[in-house]
Amino acid sequence: MTWQLKVAANMRASPLRCSMLSRPSVWPRSRVFGAAHPAGGYKASGPITMTRTDFSIAQRGVHTKRDRCLDIDNINPHVKAAKYAVRGELAVKAEEFRVRVAQGDKSLPFDSVIFANIGNPQQLDQKPITFFRQVLSLLENPLLLENPEALKSSFGYNQDVIERAQTLLADVQSVGAYSHSQGAPIIRDSVAKFIEERDGFPANPQDLFLSGGASSGVNTLLNVICNGPSAGVLVPIPQYPLYTATLSLLNAQCVPYLLEEEKAWGTDVNAIRNSLEQAKAAGTDVRAIVVINPGNPTGASLGADDIKSVLDVAAEEKLVVIADEVYQTNVFVGEFTSFKKRLRQLQQEFPGKYDNVELASLHSVSKGMVGECGHRGGYFELVGFDPLVAAQIYKFVSIMLCPPVIGQCLLEMMVNPPKKGEPSYELYQKEYNGIRDGLHKRALALYEAFQRMEGVECQEPQGSMYLFPTITLPPKAVEAAQAENRAADEFYCMRLLEATGVCVVPGSGFGQKPNTLHFRTTFLAPGTDWVERIVKFHSEFMAKYN
Amino acid sequence: MTWQLKVAANMRASPLRCSMLSRPSVWPRSRVFGAAHPAGGYKASGPITMTRTDFSIAQRGVHTKRDRCLDIDNINPHVKAAKYAVRGELAVKAEEFRVRVAQGDKSLPFDSVIFANIGNPQQLDQKPITFFRQVLSLLENPLLLENPEALKSSFGYNQDVIERAQTLLADVQSVGAYSHSQGAPIIRDSVAKFIEERDGFPANPQDLFLSGGASSGVNTLLNVICNGPSAGVLVPIPQYPLYTATLSLLNAQCVPYLLEEEKAWGTDVNAIRNSLEQAKAAGTDVRAIVVINPGNPTGASLGADDIKSVLDVAAEEKLVVIADEVYQTNVFVGEFTSFKKRLRQLQQEFPGKYDNVELASLHSVSKGMVGECGHRGGYFELVGFDPLVAAQIYKFVSIMLCPPVIGQCLLEMMVNPPKKGEPSYELYQKEYNGIRDGLHKRALALYEAFQRMEGVECQEPQGSMYLFPTITLPPKAVEAAQAENRAADEFYCMRLLEATGVCVVPGSGFGQKPNTLHFRTTFLAPGTDWVERIVKFHSEFMAKYN
Repeated sequence: MTWQLKVAANMRASPLRCSMLSRPSVWPRSRVFGAAHPAGGYKASGPITMTRTDFSIAQRGVHTKRDRCLDIDNINPHVKAAKYAVRGELAVKAEEFRVRVAQGDKSLPFDSVIFANIGNPQQLDQKPITFFRQVLSLLENPLLLENPEALKSSFGYNQDVIERAQTLLADVQSVGAYSHSQGAPIIRDSVAKFIEERDGFPANPQDLFLSGGASSGVNTLLNVICNGPSAGVLVPIPQYPLYTATLSLLNAQCVPYLLEEEKAWGTDVNAIRNSLEQAKAAGTDVRAIVVINPGNPTGASLGADDIKSVLDVAAEEKLVVIADEVYQTNVFVGEFTSFKKRLRQLQQEFPGKYDNVELASLHSVSKGMVGECGHRGGYFELVGFDPLVAAQIYKFVSIMLCPPVIGQCLLEMMVNPPKKGEPSYELYQKEYNGIRDGLHKRALALYEAFQRMEGVECQEPQGSMYLFPTITLPPKAVEAAQAENRAADEFYCMRLLEATGVCVVPGSGFGQKPNTLHFRTTFLAPGTDWVERIVKFHSEFMAKYN
Repeated sequence: MTWQLKVAANMRASPLRCSMLSRPSVWPRSRVFGAAHPAGGYKASGPITMTRTDFSIAQRGVHTKRDRCLDIDNINPHVKAAKYAVRGELAVKAEEFRVRVAQGDKSLPFDSVIFANIGNPQQLDQKPITFFRQVLSLLENPLLLENPEALKSSFGYNQDVIERAQTLLADVQSVGAYSHSQGAPIIRDSVAKFIEERDGFPANPQDLFLSGGASSGVNTLLNVICNGPSAGVLVPIPQYPLYTATLSLLNAQCVPYLLEEEKAWGTDVNAIRNSLEQAKAAGTDVRAIVVINPGNPTGASLGADDIKSVLDVAAEEKLVVIADEVYQTNVFVGEFTSFKKRLRQLQQEFPGKYDNVELASLHSVSKGMVGECGHRGGYFELVGFDPLVAAQIYKFVSIMLCPPVIGQCLLEMMVNPPKKGEPSYELYQKEYNGIRDGLHKRALALYEAFQRMEGVECQEPQGSMYLFPTITLPPKAVEAAQAENRAADEFYCMRLLEATGVCVVPGSGFGQKPNTLHFRTTFLAPGTDWVERIVKFHSEFMAKYN
């Protein structure tokens, strides 16, 4: 069962600009000069002036697209094959609607667009945490630090804000300077301490690689692991499409293992073993397993036994474990256990048995209660890697010089926030808990709404920022989707967007069990109005096609 | 003449941490727990406690490295093949020396380390431009904007600072939110306006892709262009090793064309045509040509005729032109002409002839007088690309979500700085000119020092941040290098570092004409002491080996 993740064939890559239509063949002519000549021949005509429109006309050459070096059929086929639906056609259409609403267009059947397609908290309601941003403002303008008294009296910057900025600057010198390619030493020290406190096991700054968000870390790891077209990586289905997209780019094999929806999207070790055996039988060299915990898009949170079962397979089969733990603080049910902690426990309990396990665990400033996606901060920790391999990882990341330094500093504060007794602690704690409770409340409200909807089933929210309900659509709706050459879940999501302004992502963008349909929605958007829009739409949709 | 850039075989990838020795086989044991087991067998032994040292002992397994999935011989061979000397062995050793000096080690023959290996202005003397950082501090902490009067009275933030922050925030909402994957619309609008004003020809925001530094843009472009092992890209030699490293990663062919040192490192169109013909004869599908203007590492600045000759080849041979123009404001001699401007002029002058040219031009916040490397900001503009190809580029960048938003905002200010009559103009202009004049002065001082040195020849500085002198070493020095299994220029640079603390990069890291030796040094470091260190070392080195 080695397959490239299937996404509806007509899930076209989105074009360049929000206001663009989704078919580049109708690229508006007034916009194409400089960018491209539309396919098809124009004839050169002068004279040429400097105005934009005239210039556009002047650029109509006599050639067809075959005159250029690059066309859609001769670029890197692996780029062409990659799919990434989170920012695909639906998201582009949603952005078009947003612009129309903002421009006062009253012809749409909604007055706001809700971006529930992407975990982007600060695009919606979530405010940044004050301590973090106060320190960052000082890092950006260290001249402010030259008069700390004025600073305090005018804006109430606490002493711990000032001291944190001074400490970070003493190490990085300037947030405008390149840092060490693995990240600034002082920040890796803080991350190591955080991991030690979280897990009760030591961590070493030397094993940490700071990254531009977790996505960049995943890209690094898969680049090093995948050594050719027969290399395979076990990926949960449904999954966050970064994994399948990156494997496509690397021309490596996605070896999918299905999560168990009926067991709250749990990880089924038998499913993993079956997929692995089938892939091996088909000649795939399976080298790694991806686990997203808490799950994206599923929200599932794995227990200690689930984690052990993955580590068992990894130890027996010599698989690198890629533990995507970016939602580790977004846990509503039970407690988060890291793969690193569980691995260390097992290494104590069964000396020798787990010593060969290679684990890379990822974290990010984009999720949790931090939600600072735009700052592109994150890290991964290597556990059990050959030092020569780690040195190659270092070389790989050094080609891009370093992750954004201000994002590194934000990561430092995420892992080392104000402590009890420090002046900024109380506000930090209040803001943090407020965000956490708000997310839980919204998750429950959405979950309850789904329970009211005919043909919709949803697992109780456990963690992350998403719900991933199953939808059962009437045969007539499936036929209508086919007539549009769309997957049925994509058809449903498109109609939902057009009717309500709520943008979600069809399950086909993440992978799903054959003959099932889902969509992923975040529960970040404030209020309950948008939830009621979904309920109303769904009821009308079902009535129409039943 | 299709070859992978040769770098001395023992230019090892640098290991993980500055304090590490360069041979991972002697990875210090106290640092390896969690990261890796040194090659060679240890035996598991209990009991285990939570201290770092004890844990390290406990982790000594009974396996050898064959027990793991990944080893140096089975990872992605293209990662292994990539070379990136700018952050290689010499840089790692320099960082070790820096730490020793900082810790009070008096055993070294110098009292400071000079990082002349990398264009990292703010690591050295260069101060950030005040206007930029004031605005960024407000973007990071928008709460400051709620009391602009207090803000102004305490810190002297001008009204244009406050307004710029408000304008940017109105578009991006929060610098902690993901932006559009191509970059925030308002920022692309500003970049388009900047290009129009620079070139006198229109530019379209839709054709602009903001990126995390220019490096990330180059990575995107080469990923899309290179469609298999026979794809080739013309790269100047010497070059910035990002190009050869990325081509290695993509398993594509570097087709080198030699720059003419004797003509101030000019671009020789015959060298390009010869390389191209030879590569085609060898079965390489040459798809693109890289031009770095002003040059890195050469400092050369191309005139209008040079640019035309490259565009002629591109038009005739259907090559994508990748114009790396990140040093466009670092020009001491003559004026910078962009490839876009020259292309548009030629398209006017010779209707039809240049219509098929595909050009991608890159710019960055890291260089120029901005020098904000750590913020990872940049952009590329697509000219003449097929919209379907551009859509694939969009999809590719969307997988990594978006470039750092604060770096995008910095880019906006770089292309749209305070204007005459605005309150922040005067200081901005003073700072900008101060940096520019300082760089020129240092370039000349270094150039004059090189003229005093036996066996050293250097072209007069024209632009960028580097000089790239030729060194002629005595046969005995070449023999001594061979005895150490090093390239002669690497041997020279290593001795220079050990004797003086000055870190430069050997010419072999950039590529050089066979039987020539060079090194690249920045002229960013303040003062003249370090220049005199080089002069003294060189004289002693020559005396020793003559």
